[in-house]
Amino acid sequence: MSTTAAAAPRVSERARKMPASPIRRLMPLADAAKARGVHVYHLNIGQPDIETPACMREKLAKAERVLAYSPSGGTPEYVASLSTYYAKLGFTLGPDQLLATTGGSEALLFALFACTEAGDEAILVEPFYTNYNSFAGLAGVTLRPVKARGEDGFHLPPDAAFEAVLTPRTRVFLLCNPSNPTGTVYTREEVERVGAFCRRHGLFLISDEVYREFVYDGRVATSALSLPDSDDFVIVVDSLSKRYSACGIRLGCLATRNPDVHSAALRMAQGRLSPPGLAQLVALGASEVGPEYVAGVQAEYQKRRDVLFEGLGRIPGVFLAKPEGAFYFVARLPVADTDDFAAWLLSDFSHEGATVMVAPASGFYATPGLGKDEVRIAYVLNVDDLRASVKLLEVALQRYREQRGRGQAQPPV
Amino acid sequence: MSTTAAAAPRVSERARKMPASPIRRLMPLADAAKARGVHVYHLNIGQPDIETPACMREKLAKAERVLAYSPSGGTPEYVASLSTYYAKLGFTLGPDQLLATTGGSEALLFALFACTEAGDEAILVEPFYTNYNSFAGLAGVTLRPVKARGEDGFHLPPDAAFEAVLTPRTRVFLLCNPSNPTGTVYTREEVERVGAFCRRHGLFLISDEVYREFVYDGRVATSALSLPDSDDFVIVVDSLSKRYSACGIRLGCLATRNPDVHSAALRMAQGRLSPPGLAQLVALGASEVGPEYVAGVQAEYQKRRDVLFEGLGRIPGVFLAKPEGAFYFVARLPVADTDDFAAWLLSDFSHEGATVMVAPASGFYATPGLGKDEVRIAYVLNVDDLRASVKLLEVALQRYREQRGRGQAQPPV
Repeated sequence: MSTTAAAAPRVSERARKMPASPIRRLMPLADAAKARGVHVYHLNIGQPDIETPACMREKLAKAERVLAYSPSGGTPEYVASLSTYYAKLGFTLGPDQLLATTGGSEALLFALFACTEAGDEAILVEPFYTNYNSFAGLAGVTLRPVKARGEDGFHLPPDAAFEAVLTPRTRVFLLCNPSNPTGTVYTREEVERVGAFCRRHGLFLISDEVYREFVYDGRVATSALSLPDSDDFVIVVDSLSKRYSACGIRLGCLATRNPDVHSAALRMAQGRLSPPGLAQLVALGASEVGPEYVAGVQAEYQKRRDVLFEGLGRIPGVFLAKPEGAFYFVARLPVADTDDFAAWLLSDFSHEGATVMVAPASGFYATPGLGKDEVRIAYVLNVDDLRASVKLLEVALQRYREQRGRGQAQPPV
Repeated sequence: MSTTAAAAPRVSERARKMPASPIRRLMPLADAAKARGVHVYHLNIGQPDIETPACMREKLAKAERVLAYSPSGGTPEYVASLSTYYAKLGFTLGPDQLLATTGGSEALLFALFACTEAGDEAILVEPFYTNYNSFAGLAGVTLRPVKARGEDGFHLPPDAAFEAVLTPRTRVFLLCNPSNPTGTVYTREEVERVGAFCRRHGLFLISDEVYREFVYDGRVATSALSLPDSDDFVIVVDSLSKRYSACGIRLGCLATRNPDVHSAALRMAQGRLSPPGLAQLVALGASEVGPEYVAGVQAEYQKRRDVLFEGLGRIPGVFLAKPEGAFYFVARLPVADTDDFAAWLLSDFSHEGATVMVAPASGFYATPGLGKDEVRIAYVLNVDDLRASVKLLEVALQRYREQRGRGQAQPPV
């Protein structure tokens, strides 16, 4: 049988535009450094080193003999455990207001599709969690970033800045609180201001609160669920990943009191049949995790933050406001191009057999050219490793600036 | 501070259009029947009752103390196990041609986004797996169904039927082989015909092969991976759900030799960070599952199919061609409206304390009005339960037609 062959099909424009992980380009360089015998301290990743509570892992022994589908919206037991969790925070959420999702990622995806048509727009603060680009890409949503300043600890710019990017296609305000990548914990006043902005302009507020427990110096994260008169526009994206150091199980939830949003998300969930079952089993152990676990994790991360904040603050030309939450921050370095610096750290630098890997911040900005002198640093290493990393960064910055010369920014005198 | 409140935001049109599970409407009726003490035989669900192999479940004992992110494309061990699996089928696929996904569902979603822009079209045979509607809805893809006939065992219509729905926006041919819901196993000739059609018109072929092992009477499912000169347009969607009766773990893969499609899917995968980790651990046990497991499962399902085919074939007015694979088939019943009949079975009928639940086939058609006299039946119950179900259906059909009267189709004389 003879057939004429057409040209091979090409992948879609939206697929071609899908961004690669900003770290990925550096991975081969890190692998090569390790192959040369250089120890690499990873300040680039958000995978906590804390153990998943044993009372959660032990639930796996109770797995059924048939690893069957669970209900699309989650097992009644998992959903009930979510209700209990939110009740302790002071929020009453029933099973019709909670939906189990495959990580916070899927909750965000469902929320975006529920709130927008392709071509609609979302306002958010930049720098922002880089994977928002991927979800927005899938949903066909244009992100309209408003720049926050490192000098302000990346707290919210005034309303006028948000008004300036508002268009007739704006449907969503996307807030990450506490913030990845900046570690900013927005004050109650700021969250209320965002809520009022959304109400004034008829926007949904998608509030990504997966770092809720990671707040320091006695702070409390303000959930968008606490906003008065906000039932019809608040959607909270949540996850067990960081809370219980269980990133790999891929379990989260979408919490909303808007029944139409819940219904839409549930129908999307039915399409993909069910969230991971073993993860929901593990999650049931969370009810046995006492408050001392969260307090211990908080204390540990606060100590790590202190080590980095104090250490980095002593390096000439480095600037960061004191991080308030999550386990990331964005620091300004005295270099012109942190993409180059991050690659150089892995390819050309080592000191006493070691180097550090950092995430160039440009990947966390949507506006081209921003973040070129910033890096995102994660503190999921132990205190000794963090101290060693600070020392390495200090030596590296000096040597890099000597090698790269005049092109580099000068430290303030 | 006074603020003017805008109207509350509304969910998107695409969210409103997202279809609910066609079974869902019947669920409250089934629950009510059970509450009345009526036993309900579920011929509506695709959850196998076969145990997940112990050698897979036992891997959970090896879970790490930190349930950490895995690589976005899957752990090297899981990806290697996929290579080994495909090698046994005669297909050489390396780690750059395999991507771990959260069930076959996510593989299908990634494939659709990789191949299409919003507004593009996909050709497929109807009746089809109802959740394709959900994924197409998210991707903004219009499904262009071509009707297959029960008299032909739902085998492919001639090429002319596909040519008739081809438009300049057609990008994809979506094939489910073996087919859910019809149980059709397309012949090698049919798969080659689809391949040639795609090559002739420059289309991607997305081949959903999650029921590959579920083939009866000595049949072998023809994978699209076996098509010659097809590396640039074939994308296989696969899953461990049915193969190892592990639906709840949510693990599958996307297999393609087109590097651009793989790259696009990997970048989407990076956005959602990683596939479920515990599932990938369980999957490693699959290498210890011997061929006798698959042979045993095949024999069991073939026996079940025989019980249903023979039993239903004896009921006046019921028609079905002998199902060839998967564990579903679509049967024609002598009633005018199977949506009404399925509801009546749960609400108004019982015989010796029991009834059956079936899925009306209208939900598996995109063309309005089709499938009104058909049901999808799944055979994931044991043989005794299936025999009881056949008896119940026979009694029910007679009683229903007496009650509903002349409106019903007459059995052929």
